[in-house]
Amino acid sequence: MTTKYAIGLDYGTNSVRALVVDVQSGEEVGTSVFPYPSGTAGILLDARDPNLARQHPQDYLDGMVASIRGALTDAATHDGFDPARVIGIGFDTTGSTPLPVDSEGIPLAFDERFRDNLNAYVWLWKDHTGHAEAAEITARAQELRPAFLAKCGGTYSSEWFWSKILHCLRVDPDVFVAAHTWVEHADWMPAVLTGTAHPSKLRRGICAAGHKAMFNTAWGGYPDEEFLATLDEWLVPLRRTLPNEAYHAGEAAGTLTEEWAERLGLPVGIPVGIGAFDAHLGAVGSGIAPGTLVKIIGTSTCDLMIAPMAQDLADIPGLCGIVPESVMPGQYGLEAGQSAVGDIFNWFVNQIQPAGKDHGVLTEEAEQLRPGESGLLALDWHNGNRTILVDQRLTGLLVGMTLHTTPAEMYRAFVEATAFGARVIMERYEEYGVAVERIVNCGGISAKNRMVMQIYADAMGRPLQISRSTQTCALGAAMSGAVVAGPEAGGHATFADAVDAMTGVQDTTFTPIPENQQRYDQLYALYRRLHDAFGVQGAPDDLYDVMKQLLTIRDEVRR
Amino acid sequence: MTTKYAIGLDYGTNSVRALVVDVQSGEEVGTSVFPYPSGTAGILLDARDPNLARQHPQDYLDGMVASIRGALTDAATHDGFDPARVIGIGFDTTGSTPLPVDSEGIPLAFDERFRDNLNAYVWLWKDHTGHAEAAEITARAQELRPAFLAKCGGTYSSEWFWSKILHCLRVDPDVFVAAHTWVEHADWMPAVLTGTAHPSKLRRGICAAGHKAMFNTAWGGYPDEEFLATLDEWLVPLRRTLPNEAYHAGEAAGTLTEEWAERLGLPVGIPVGIGAFDAHLGAVGSGIAPGTLVKIIGTSTCDLMIAPMAQDLADIPGLCGIVPESVMPGQYGLEAGQSAVGDIFNWFVNQIQPAGKDHGVLTEEAEQLRPGESGLLALDWHNGNRTILVDQRLTGLLVGMTLHTTPAEMYRAFVEATAFGARVIMERYEEYGVAVERIVNCGGISAKNRMVMQIYADAMGRPLQISRSTQTCALGAAMSGAVVAGPEAGGHATFADAVDAMTGVQDTTFTPIPENQQRYDQLYALYRRLHDAFGVQGAPDDLYDVMKQLLTIRDEVRR
Repeated sequence: MTTKYAIGLDYGTNSVRALVVDVQSGEEVGTSVFPYPSGTAGILLDARDPNLARQHPQDYLDGMVASIRGALTDAATHDGFDPARVIGIGFDTTGSTPLPVDSEGIPLAFDERFRDNLNAYVWLWKDHTGHAEAAEITARAQELRPAFLAKCGGTYSSEWFWSKILHCLRVDPDVFVAAHTWVEHADWMPAVLTGTAHPSKLRRGICAAGHKAMFNTAWGGYPDEEFLATLDEWLVPLRRTLPNEAYHAGEAAGTLTEEWAERLGLPVGIPVGIGAFDAHLGAVGSGIAPGTLVKIIGTSTCDLMIAPMAQDLADIPGLCGIVPESVMPGQYGLEAGQSAVGDIFNWFVNQIQPAGKDHGVLTEEAEQLRPGESGLLALDWHNGNRTILVDQRLTGLLVGMTLHTTPAEMYRAFVEATAFGARVIMERYEEYGVAVERIVNCGGISAKNRMVMQIYADAMGRPLQISRSTQTCALGAAMSGAVVAGPEAGGHATFADAVDAMTGVQDTTFTPIPENQQRYDQLYALYRRLHDAFGVQGAPDDLYDVMKQLLTIRDEVRR
Repeated sequence: MTTKYAIGLDYGTNSVRALVVDVQSGEEVGTSVFPYPSGTAGILLDARDPNLARQHPQDYLDGMVASIRGALTDAATHDGFDPARVIGIGFDTTGSTPLPVDSEGIPLAFDERFRDNLNAYVWLWKDHTGHAEAAEITARAQELRPAFLAKCGGTYSSEWFWSKILHCLRVDPDVFVAAHTWVEHADWMPAVLTGTAHPSKLRRGICAAGHKAMFNTAWGGYPDEEFLATLDEWLVPLRRTLPNEAYHAGEAAGTLTEEWAERLGLPVGIPVGIGAFDAHLGAVGSGIAPGTLVKIIGTSTCDLMIAPMAQDLADIPGLCGIVPESVMPGQYGLEAGQSAVGDIFNWFVNQIQPAGKDHGVLTEEAEQLRPGESGLLALDWHNGNRTILVDQRLTGLLVGMTLHTTPAEMYRAFVEATAFGARVIMERYEEYGVAVERIVNCGGISAKNRMVMQIYADAMGRPLQISRSTQTCALGAAMSGAVVAGPEAGGHATFADAVDAMTGVQDTTFTPIPENQQRYDQLYALYRRLHDAFGVQGAPDDLYDVMKQLLTIRDEVRR
């Protein structure tokens, strides 16, 4: 049988990767990365507002061409590869990362009028400017539509679709009015390739809609106009631009247009999958199945599980989302995650620059330390807490410093804090009846840092496997391409078939060291004390308001 | 009248300074510093035990000769100076810094048998190896002799005399048994110069005895044998080596011996004052008087006041000591302090080395920040908390970090934390009826860092004066020399006279900026919340045990 290939496009926070994959073996035959040229590592920032993070849609288009062309060139050295044998394309992106577009579906950022206005650009997932609006949406939904919240952990996040749009409406009505609608990055990319970016043709993905925009077929799709009107009347016309259907990544957005086939050097008419979030397709690329927790550990984490839609599933407080078919058809997609993991380590190395030591040196030194010997304990909330507190207005904490505390001790304490954060998520799944029988890790950190993985195994008390692919998101996207192509074209009938054929784990498993595990149980108990004192509003003596007040003061002073 | 001079010797943590002062004008005509050559910056450390900090008595002797000779050489360039016109010598040292000596009064550290045993050396003030013994002494005194604790803040510290000695007895009975008695550094220096180091001749100072060894004439001097026997029978013979009298720094330890007069190039037979702690004589050199709080801000702080013994004075919880005549005759000496201030800034710069920035660069950047704008808040407990919690088993804390937090923001947060710690002390004085009418600052940081002083003024809400002398400890020691010399020799009859003649403040006063003061009031309220949550055992939801458990785990792991 002739070998067939699919291409996965993985749009990350700072760059986009294209991956060419053999659909039968999962072999990755060509890849290429394009770092976004705009702003700071691809992110447009505002020195006056640390909550703001935007991107330039042109970077996405340039990156599509450059990375696919690059990956094809790379694959060309592989015996038997031919671009004509590419049968499908799939996409994953960050999210919720929406952009405002005009009535033709063209991004407002390309409009000369808005060239200097960051509100017209793409609102990156880590933009938290809408935190007040998130609180407002949460409060209103608690009052009027509690069902909306039950599926997204009980709190609507500032990282999500409606918080961002409502914030734009409040602070920049010109941009809001100029926008015909808002499109998720994950939906925009396949729409561009398939000529379906016009709002009348656009197909939206269930992954973004369900996890970030309160879309659920149980209540007829996106939130109803009546509810939205209580937030702001202006949301009603926007709501009318949103369809009542959404599609999973096993369905096609359309087929590759002639124009784009030529620009990319690919066969015209091949199917392009509906886009999904990086984590969800990363989970697919890691071989997700019921009972398997896939942890994608990078700048932040996503901790995904799936559960058969046939079985009863309780709402799980603090989970970012429980969305039918957001990961694969026939299964609930369950999404949890930590708002910052690698970002915390990077902050320490790049921003604090302790003793000029890089990740390698700090890891080497931290590896020599035994659990508990530094006397340090940290909270992993430098970028808020996504699961289980769903609260962006939380901040980092480090306790236990003495005059002898070293950079390596601090580095290790931050790693341990993220391991404890990971354990909180795992325990939350299990508390609500979703048994974690196996854990597969993927993402940059799992591939690169053995110390981190051993600490995670010790702190979580579970053996940890590592995905065979080091590009599971792009692999999952390529698997979407293989599924939409279907068996007739040489692809796969289902994601389960694609998982069997295209994924695997590495030989090495990280197993808990009993002595360390025991020590981390002690430290985890203390971590939970701090977690609850600062993160959970409750007892009269809690410290819940301390981080909040500090942020309020900060915002007042900076205003 | 012929100009007369006194010499002050100031033994600090890392070096000793000699200062030659004109006793009528306070003019400082010669000075010289000798850094202790042993160990790390003069401190003998043990990598296995971060609590351990010892010194070498030879450094003290070498430093006496080198610094006095150096100061005399420096003074020689001054018009009219002649070593023959030196009328007295005074001493201050750190404390409690005791050393074990044999029956001749010779330090055990000079005994060949103990050359490699750090327990036979000097136990520096910041040695916390005796923390368990401190807790034991506190508990026993609470039960049997509550009066002992009432004068030292309710808690006996691991930094103090009996904690150290009891710890030595427990971990190294050989050294304990070989020691005939233990002598404070402040007592040993004048004893050496005056040939009174033999235990039968040694005069001990009220400052060290009263503040650190539970000496009080109200109960007949040092703690009674019966009490000590409940801690350990072996303390009874040691107690018998301790006299029932103690002397203040306005009294002489003796006169300069021929041998030392020759080694130092000074007149034989001039009086040498009883030694006192650096902070106490620093307060004298800063012009202490009733109603004046003298803050000595260096690696740690001492916050001293005096109050007339004629007036009623409540026991003040958390104060390190309330000791008759420990600062000057006729007055209670009241001692409070922060266990680390400059040490925290130095830790950040030297140990963490953020972005390779030194104090100058970080100060320049931190000065540009407005109060509250970083969103950070810290606790200044890297070396425990001396006042008002009297608890060495507390550690540092930093809360509010985001992925954008900078080194300068952290630096400023640590400065602010020490300012809040300073305010806690000031408020504690006033809560117990000791009005703070004026604040005079001295010590390295007050002289060198305007930003720190402005933050202190803003955070404390008080105008801050700076002592004219930048060597107030050495100046106070020289004033002791001038007082023991007396008016007949050209010196002074009382410390009050010496204060009038020899001290003053700089022209610049740091005045609170109302806007900053208001902002710091908000942050101080949050600081107190963290302070009480982590530092005060009480409410069921407190976090009092978190730092303790982390330290216990650390100690277990390192054992």
